[in-house]
This record gives sequence, structure tokens and C-alpha cells, in this order.
Amino acid sequence: MPRVFNFSPGPATLPEPVLRQAADEMLDWRGSGMSVMEMSHRGKEFMSIQAEAEASLRELLAIPPNYTVLFLQGGGIGQNAIVPMNLIGRTGRADYVLSGDWSKRSADEAAHFGPIRIAASSEEGGRYLRMPAPSEWKLDPGAAYVHYCANETIGGVECFWTPDTGGVPLVSDMSSNLLSRPIDVSRYGLIYAGAQKNVGMSGLTLVIVREDLLGHALPTTPSVFNYQIQAKADSMYNTPPTYAIYIAGLVFKHVQSLGGLAAMEAHNRAKAAVLYDFLDQSRFFSNPVEPADRSRMNVPFWLRDTSLDEVFLKGAQARGLVQLKGHRSVGGMRASIYNAMPIEGVRALVDYMREFEARHG
Amino acid sequence: MPRVFNFSPGPATLPEPVLRQAADEMLDWRGSGMSVMEMSHRGKEFMSIQAEAEASLRELLAIPPNYTVLFLQGGGIGQNAIVPMNLIGRTGRADYVLSGDWSKRSADEAAHFGPIRIAASSEEGGRYLRMPAPSEWKLDPGAAYVHYCANETIGGVECFWTPDTGGVPLVSDMSSNLLSRPIDVSRYGLIYAGAQKNVGMSGLTLVIVREDLLGHALPTTPSVFNYQIQAKADSMYNTPPTYAIYIAGLVFKHVQSLGGLAAMEAHNRAKAAVLYDFLDQSRFFSNPVEPADRSRMNVPFWLRDTSLDEVFLKGAQARGLVQLKGHRSVGGMRASIYNAMPIEGVRALVDYMREFEARHG
Repeated sequence: MPRVFNFSPGPATLPEPVLRQAADEMLDWRGSGMSVMEMSHRGKEFMSIQAEAEASLRELLAIPPNYTVLFLQGGGIGQNAIVPMNLIGRTGRADYVLSGDWSKRSADEAAHFGPIRIAASSEEGGRYLRMPAPSEWKLDPGAAYVHYCANETIGGVECFWTPDTGGVPLVSDMSSNLLSRPIDVSRYGLIYAGAQKNVGMSGLTLVIVREDLLGHALPTTPSVFNYQIQAKADSMYNTPPTYAIYIAGLVFKHVQSLGGLAAMEAHNRAKAAVLYDFLDQSRFFSNPVEPADRSRMNVPFWLRDTSLDEVFLKGAQARGLVQLKGHRSVGGMRASIYNAMPIEGVRALVDYMREFEARHG
Repeated sequence: MPRVFNFSPGPATLPEPVLRQAADEMLDWRGSGMSVMEMSHRGKEFMSIQAEAEASLRELLAIPPNYTVLFLQGGGIGQNAIVPMNLIGRTGRADYVLSGDWSKRSADEAAHFGPIRIAASSEEGGRYLRMPAPSEWKLDPGAAYVHYCANETIGGVECFWTPDTGGVPLVSDMSSNLLSRPIDVSRYGLIYAGAQKNVGMSGLTLVIVREDLLGHALPTTPSVFNYQIQAKADSMYNTPPTYAIYIAGLVFKHVQSLGGLAAMEAHNRAKAAVLYDFLDQSRFFSNPVEPADRSRMNVPFWLRDTSLDEVFLKGAQARGLVQLKGHRSVGGMRASIYNAMPIEGVRALVDYMREFEARHG
């Protein structure tokens, strides 16, 4: 079958040149006689792969030298516990801002490790349709950190500004929008991201942490998830997810070759505009999110007549437009359009939606 | 370059047919138009891959139905914390048996979660050269569990018998010898293994746990590492390491095609015999481990004249015999000869050692 347009929220579509290179190098990485999967993590071949991946990431995000990059495991949901385990010890309490299901889950998990306060929430009637505005953030200056989610994949709410938290370290879950546009890392205390959206395959978690925040881990923090221990060991206190790091490195190089994060932002803006412009003029499809906070990564939308949901999905599948079903908690549809989704995929989706509306609307 | 004989202790050599299939399917898994890396973990394609991998593993190990199989992250070293987090709560204390560096590390990490008692240790003068005999295990009948390491990759000490612990649940770190021979799973409370030896690539951890042991997790156990939560969610409480599970599934099928674990045992016995028989007649190379406890997976050996270590390694590399350097904590050499190492690789190594001894011995 030809390659489909895969709108999965994650694991998600990857750049085809990256997959081709991975296939080509599978049995023999650059004359080593080994697959990357087979390499000792402490051998010179893999050490060079990891170092190069880190260097590319540092260049893409312009990560300042006083930030450590960690390659960990356990995903974004793992970090919901690992962040408080490592950071809450500094003052003993933390603030959370709620803008959707993921930030709510982060706050719920953190509550096992100390008192958590909700500094702002945009929840209304069980739904989150916007980011809490800066003026709504009621911060505790004594919090060890304040946590928010930069992009909510279920609700389709994204934060396009960098919160000003005074001196309180800002922790951001960027699992689903890291690398989609430039950010100013120096404004953050810690950024984390599961890899399976814009970075690569699942099983790898990136953590970018300001070094002065290390050293406050609770005594029951597993050593493999103690940021300070892993920072000292170059993420090799245990065997890192080597193949996932290799794939991430290939993705980073690919993004660099396309012009870096400014080019990604232009590309992602253009794709999102195609979809939201269509939704806003449609009388059959709709997206309820506050326009300024609409995610460029995940676009949930609903059919006016939900009894046609299955018909819509089946017709999409027949055209090679797959994984469009919305999250089970909210229903409807969702198009995830990360970096690796070409604009042709979004156009093909909109063409299909237009035809579907003409037939059923 | 032709494929080398890779003696890495892990990540380690993988079966070439598995790598070929992974390369062939990289851009399009069985007509799906997607790479396995790109599949939503909740889509029917990946769900079938994970279910098939679990079914193969259950068949290979004859896992009884009252055991849950979990696909987690964090590796064996992660389990050093995750095991006590989940199990020690049953009675509040646990026993550990020491047979090398890995079991020592397991005990040290567990001590953060409750009182740990050393039930037996074979340490003498800082070295471990044998398994503590069954008569030396002084078990606490009130322990929540007793933990041992079934194969120590650094010392090259393996346990070939199943300890009888009365009613105390037996926990085994089988990271480096799982799937190398048949075992009786029903004798264990819990078995865990990082995947990067006989199972596949790093970034995946297998946990096989008797269901009645679930439900005692400490309140600060991260949800993604709470066995009961993951058991209820079929290991999908968070996004699992999907590609690593796919590769493990291919390895399981490959082992089945070769005749299962009885065939693996015969193959591994034959390979180990070639190497140990040579070592025992050599006057230049030696292995100090008690013969009954010598690992079939990791064979450390020393040159009589250690000033020739680098010469030995360089000559080996030139013949395509790679990753033979011993662990930095003990020096010398180490040949890791997991399932996927062909006997030709071991014979090529012994041929080289024989020539080296003739020239330098």
C-alpha cells in the first residue's frame, strides 16, 4: 500500500527520509557491521550518535549552556511523578495551571508528593476551551515550581506565549509541541516531552532542566529518574533507549535541513490555517476552541450530525486519511498535524471534508 | 562492512532475520501504509502486534494464566526501585541474595523503600565467584519477597537452579538470561528483564508477575510504574515503547521458529562449552568462576599478561570480533554470547585466542 496520511495523535507520522535512512542502516550502521540496536551504549559508535543528537537538539532550540539535556524513559505521564519527585523538595509545594485533561492529570499525580495548588484553570462545565489568561494565574511566590501544559492534545488548546512567573521556576509539558516552533528556553526551569510526536518514536523522554534546580530529589526517587544522577552520568546511569535516541537524532538533522524551527513554525501555521479556515466557514463541521488558543498540532472537530461519525471515518480511511477518530473522552474527530504531516495531507483532508459536507450537510 | 561478531554485554547482537524483517517493514507494515513507529498504540494494528508478542512470550515461557505480563520502561535498574515500590508494602521488609554487582545494586536501591536484609552473599574480598548455595540462604519467612539475580553479567555468575523459598515470593532479575533456557515460571512471584540482551532493543522492560502480589504499591509509586495500574491497562496506562515491543515480538517468533527455549538451551550450552573448555586448558587465559556457576551468557576472562590487553582487543577488532573489553570495574575481557550469537562467532573467538596464546603465551 502507498504511504497513508496518518493523523494519529502519537505515536505519529515521521518524516519519510528518516524512515528510509533507518531502514538502509538497519543491518550495518556506517560500516560498523552492527545495527544501532545492537551497539553497546558505552561503545564509541553509540556515544557519537547520542552526542550528535544532543548537539542537534541544542542547536535547534538554542539551549543555553546552563541547561542539561536528559534522555530518559517513561514518557510524559512518567514525568507527572518524576518532576515533583525531583523538584518539589526545594520548597515543599508547587503550583499547577489547568488548561485540559493532560495538565489535570499532571496535577493529580503530583499531589502524591506534596501539597499542590491550582494557580489557574480554564475548566468550565467539564470542558477546557482556552488557556487561562496571564492575569488569571495566581502564583504562590514560595512554590517550588509552576507547571503548565503547552499543548493539550485532547482539547486542542495550545499556549502561544511564555508565562511570566517572576522568580518561580516554570515547568512546561511540551510533549506535543516541542520543535514545532522556536521557544526561549531561558524562560523555563524545566521542559519535558515524550518523543512520540515531533521527536521520534515512543519510549524516549526528553528533559531539559536548568542546572541550579538539580539536587532536591526526594529520597524515594528511583535513581534512574533522579535528574542529578542522570545528569552526572550523561543519561547513562542505566542503559538509555538507544534506538529511540538514534531516531530522534535523525529527526533533528532532518528538521535542521528544512531550516530549523522558524521554518517548522511557518509550515505549521500554514497547515493549521488550511484546516481552521475551512472549519470556520463550514456549517457542518466545527471547532469550539477560543481562536487565539487553537492548537496548531491537534485540531479536534465535530460533525453537526454525530450519527455520521462512522461514515466519515470509513470514507476517510478509504482515501488513505487514517487515525482521525477523536479521543474517547470527548468523541468527534481529531486531526493531529505535527511537523511531519505534509500540507498535502491537510489539503486532502479538507477536500474530503468539503465533499462530505456537500453530500451530507 | 560485513556483519561483525558482536560480543557486547547489551545492547547486544540480534538475529539477522529479525533485523532484515524490521528493515523491510520500516516504511509500510503489512500494507498499513505506516511504519510501526508511527502507529497509534491504541490503533488495531499496534494492538495486534502487542497481543501477538505477549502470546508468543507466554508460549515460549509457558507462563501460567495467573501471571500478568507487563511491557514497561526504565530497564532492569529501574526495577531496582520499582520492585520494592510495588511489593515491599505487603509485609514492610524484604530479603536480598547477593551474587555479584547487579544484585548488590538492587539491594542498595531497595533500601530506600524499607528495611532490606541480606539473606545470603557470596562476596569474598570484594569479588563474587559463585552463587550462594541453597543451604546458605537464611530466609525471613515474614519478608515481602526475596530477590536474587539469575545471571550476573559483570562477574559471569549464573544460577542454574530455582531457589526454594517456602512461601516467600521469589523475585528474579533475569535481565541477562531470560529466554536462554526453559524455566518454571510458577516457582516465581515476579521475574523482570531489561530487553537488551535476549529479547530485543533497550528501552523495554518485561515484568512477569503473579497476580495475587498486585495491590500493595506504596502511595508514592509513579502510576506508570504501578504494576496493578498497568496490568488493568494492558501496559497502556501511558504510551508503551511500541517499536521495542514490535522488535521483541519478532525475536520471540524467531526463537519459536528455532525450536523454543529447549533449543536455545542446547545451543547456549554448546557455545559456552567451546569457550570454557578452551579456557580450562589454556595457560594464558583464565576464568576464576566456580565451574557449576559459570554463566552461559557472559564469559569474563583474563590474560595472564594484562599489558597485552590492548593488543588482544586490537587484533580481535581487526578480525571482526568486537566489544570484548571487560567491565571497567573488573578489567580483563568479557565475551557475551547471548541467544543471537552464533556458535561460529564463539569458534572464531577461540581460534583467535589460541593463535594469540601461541604467539604471546
